[in-house]
Amino acid sequence: MTTARIIDFLNTRRPEGPCLVVDLDVVRDNFKAFRHAMPDSSIYYAVKANPSPEILRLLAGLGSNFDCAGVAEIEMALEAGATPSRISYGNTIKKERDVARAHALGVSLFAVDSHEEVEKVSRAAPGARVFCRVLTDGEGAEWPLSRKFGCVPQMAVDVLVYAHQLGLVSHGVSFHVGSQMTKVDAWDVALADAKRVFVQLAKQGIELKMVNMGGGFPTKYLRDVPSAEAYGKAIYGALRKHFGNQLPETIIEPGRGMVGNAGVIKAEVILISKKSDNDNHRWVFLDIGKFGGLAETMDEAIRYPIRTAHDADEMEPCVLAGPTCDSADVLYEKNMYPLPVSLTIGDEVLIEGTGAYTTTYSAVAFNGFDPLKSYVI
Amino acid sequence: MTTARIIDFLNTRRPEGPCLVVDLDVVRDNFKAFRHAMPDSSIYYAVKANPSPEILRLLAGLGSNFDCAGVAEIEMALEAGATPSRISYGNTIKKERDVARAHALGVSLFAVDSHEEVEKVSRAAPGARVFCRVLTDGEGAEWPLSRKFGCVPQMAVDVLVYAHQLGLVSHGVSFHVGSQMTKVDAWDVALADAKRVFVQLAKQGIELKMVNMGGGFPTKYLRDVPSAEAYGKAIYGALRKHFGNQLPETIIEPGRGMVGNAGVIKAEVILISKKSDNDNHRWVFLDIGKFGGLAETMDEAIRYPIRTAHDADEMEPCVLAGPTCDSADVLYEKNMYPLPVSLTIGDEVLIEGTGAYTTTYSAVAFNGFDPLKSYVI
Repeated sequence: MTTARIIDFLNTRRPEGPCLVVDLDVVRDNFKAFRHAMPDSSIYYAVKANPSPEILRLLAGLGSNFDCAGVAEIEMALEAGATPSRISYGNTIKKERDVARAHALGVSLFAVDSHEEVEKVSRAAPGARVFCRVLTDGEGAEWPLSRKFGCVPQMAVDVLVYAHQLGLVSHGVSFHVGSQMTKVDAWDVALADAKRVFVQLAKQGIELKMVNMGGGFPTKYLRDVPSAEAYGKAIYGALRKHFGNQLPETIIEPGRGMVGNAGVIKAEVILISKKSDNDNHRWVFLDIGKFGGLAETMDEAIRYPIRTAHDADEMEPCVLAGPTCDSADVLYEKNMYPLPVSLTIGDEVLIEGTGAYTTTYSAVAFNGFDPLKSYVI
Repeated sequence: MTTARIIDFLNTRRPEGPCLVVDLDVVRDNFKAFRHAMPDSSIYYAVKANPSPEILRLLAGLGSNFDCAGVAEIEMALEAGATPSRISYGNTIKKERDVARAHALGVSLFAVDSHEEVEKVSRAAPGARVFCRVLTDGEGAEWPLSRKFGCVPQMAVDVLVYAHQLGLVSHGVSFHVGSQMTKVDAWDVALADAKRVFVQLAKQGIELKMVNMGGGFPTKYLRDVPSAEAYGKAIYGALRKHFGNQLPETIIEPGRGMVGNAGVIKAEVILISKKSDNDNHRWVFLDIGKFGGLAETMDEAIRYPIRTAHDADEMEPCVLAGPTCDSADVLYEKNMYPLPVSLTIGDEVLIEGTGAYTTTYSAVAFNGFDPLKSYVI
């Protein structure tokens, strides 16, 4: 959402070129909403969503833990004030030397989803705690996860037994229901799987302690999404259903849900044109596109709210495209985007819900364009 | 191709992490092949393919001109030794203040494809030469261009007349047959369209002089591609067919065809695993993926040759994926990639044909990973 603080910043500073502005007050509110809705779960902020130092410092101060995808993110979390005990190395695909680096920094919680990864962790971080990621189907997610991460639950049992045999602490199970998950009951099936892994391990004398329930908490783009409370209610209901009175420790890893709605990208209309005189549709070109930070428009997956000064005027569907010489740099074409008829070249547009997965996705210098600038206020 | 110089560099320097190594000798050979095959066309290297200063300096020294997508690329070409007269601002989507900046730097050749863009150029670069891009269907291209750029030929006539009325020099017509175009006769239809625009303009007393035949010249990935000679023969045949004895000035804009086969990415196998015990397919994870520079594997479009030390061994189809926590970061899954059964974690792989469209596409810091490093030797 475009807060008064963001509007004030843009009016006062008038930054040139496309830029992201993130309002820390919104991040703080989001953190509190998660903590309030799911008081018995530890929050591990998914750093990859937006690793700005200001955001990490705020969250570290509020007591957040951190889910890191690599050593650089671990270093950023430590720099922001987190202790190593508050960090999870959540990527299931790690170089052994990166596991060793994380271990040397004091990190002792690692994700795995294969025997091969367990072997690396056992060599490079002996004695560490590991959790095994299980596959979920991701049904209902707007940015579904493929089969890339996780293994089937039966194999997770074998992986965790193997970890135990190699001297690691088999600590728990993780899953991810899929990013921008708008079905609050999506966690139910995955928690049933997690419970089955707990039971199988217990039969072999290994007591798992933790369920990492991942991310997937959505940001409001064009459609309303359930509140943190609604997720909390559904998830804790599912936890009680499957685990009864023996609730495990639980972790959640919000990324998009923590920062998505805190950011707004200011962009500019570079060109509005047609392809022929009898073309029914206008092409609207912005100074930001797929390679400038809006990578999640890939396959038109994420549909951002766009605000202009003319939104009270008549609207018409437009093709919306980015500024590069790459024909893949079209944001919305199959499902055209309604924009004001009165929109003109040079107009500013505000792209809301862009606090997550924009700055770091931005290309280094494609077409010579600078990466997306970011201001955290 | 992995040249002896590249192998020697990798063996001597042992750079850590994924990196691109570009052999300037191959770039030089490619330039000479284009000049030899198409001696009557001016070569405008598409800087966006790879803007490394060493490549730009080499090509400037060889007499190349430069097709630039933005002001930063223009500045890089000037820095490399090109004069402004050797630069084309080839992006049809430009901010008016960027047109003014280019004009101030001495650039006087601009692409347009709409009345609106003509107005900007007439205001910000009065008296400049413009060429109008016409739509082509891109049939036969492996990375086809959408309808994003260009207008229908009839509208191009109107756009060029309008440019003339606004005091610009209506200089010519451009088209782009689509990147990685392997059909040498693809230029024929587009040249027929171009000729019709010439004829229409002549009827209104405006003499066009130039046809910009764009890029599209391929790099050899897995399949053989026609030689520069074959393109030259087909294209000059088509030019004579449509323009007879009144051949226009012609421009070509090779990017991928100039640098693609000059570069090799060295990467490392991070993990090889299966999703279940009875999974038929191995997943092979590299330390580079879609967000580290291999963006053109989007929709599995570009299929790079991958070399390993085990290529004499039995092969099996694998899913190939990148290192990030993004499930979209899978390179080849629908069409799995044959890799040696004996490939193991830690092995080095060489990804050939990666000299173009890798370094600048790379994400700034997604998952905290560094952008693709590049060495030009």
